[in-house]
Amino acid sequence: MGDVSELTAIDHVAVAVHDLEAAIAYYRDTFGAEVTHREVVERDGVEEALLAVADSYIQLLTPIRDDSPVAKSLATRGEGLHHVGYRVDDCAGARRWRSCTRSPRSGPSSSWSRNKGRRAPGDPTLS
Amino acid sequence: MGDVSELTAIDHVAVAVHDLEAAIAYYRDTFGAEVTHREVVERDGVEEALLAVADSYIQLLTPIRDDSPVAKSLATRGEGLHHVGYRVDDCAGARRWRSCTRSPRSGPSSSWSRNKGRRAPGDPTLS
Repeated sequence: MGDVSELTAIDHVAVAVHDLEAAIAYYRDTFGAEVTHREVVERDGVEEALLAVADSYIQLLTPIRDDSPVAKSLATRGEGLHHVGYRVDDCAGARRWRSCTRSPRSGPSSSWSRNKGRRAPGDPTLS
Repeated sequence: MGDVSELTAIDHVAVAVHDLEAAIAYYRDTFGAEVTHREVVERDGVEEALLAVADSYIQLLTPIRDDSPVAKSLATRGEGLHHVGYRVDDCAGARRWRSCTRSPRSGPSSSWSRNKGRRAPGDPTLS
């Protein structure tokens, strides 16, 4: 590795919740945070709500299927932090990551990445 | 609440680890991330290493005492995400937060806050 980090920003912190409406209400009533994007992501078996925090997001996730990874995480660990997504300049070059996805909301130069499913000392990904 | 979020930035994502040296090596070797600050925080019973990601940090935490909250988290949940710290403009006004600390690294206008110990739907704090 060189001496420049591949991680250019924290894109999002994902929080697994049982009840998306209740979680949205909690963040709105407690901190004034509002939903800026909401989407069902069939591939991942989740519905997500994004709350902007500066240039990053809190990503609230709730399962839409019992076999989704988020449903399994809720069953075993309960509600709470699920993973962190980092932005990288070069998704193709980030081969050490398990998952690297070009983000539709940030443009092609700021894809985000998560090392989903990988466990190592200090690994920020729980799923 | 008004319609403006109190959360002005993600200050840090904290990751509980058993072995701080191994975690630092993992982030360096995998992503090129380097330690920018390191400190023993006696009050919290932890040693921390901060790795800058843009204007935010990955905060690696390892306990220095068996009775520290991070030691308890490692014993019950294992390594992984521990909490998220958000910046707020007005620490005194953020009374809904359990913990709000003026950050020495960000200046008085960008204290950070965590709702440590509080559990609610979607609460990002695990500790």
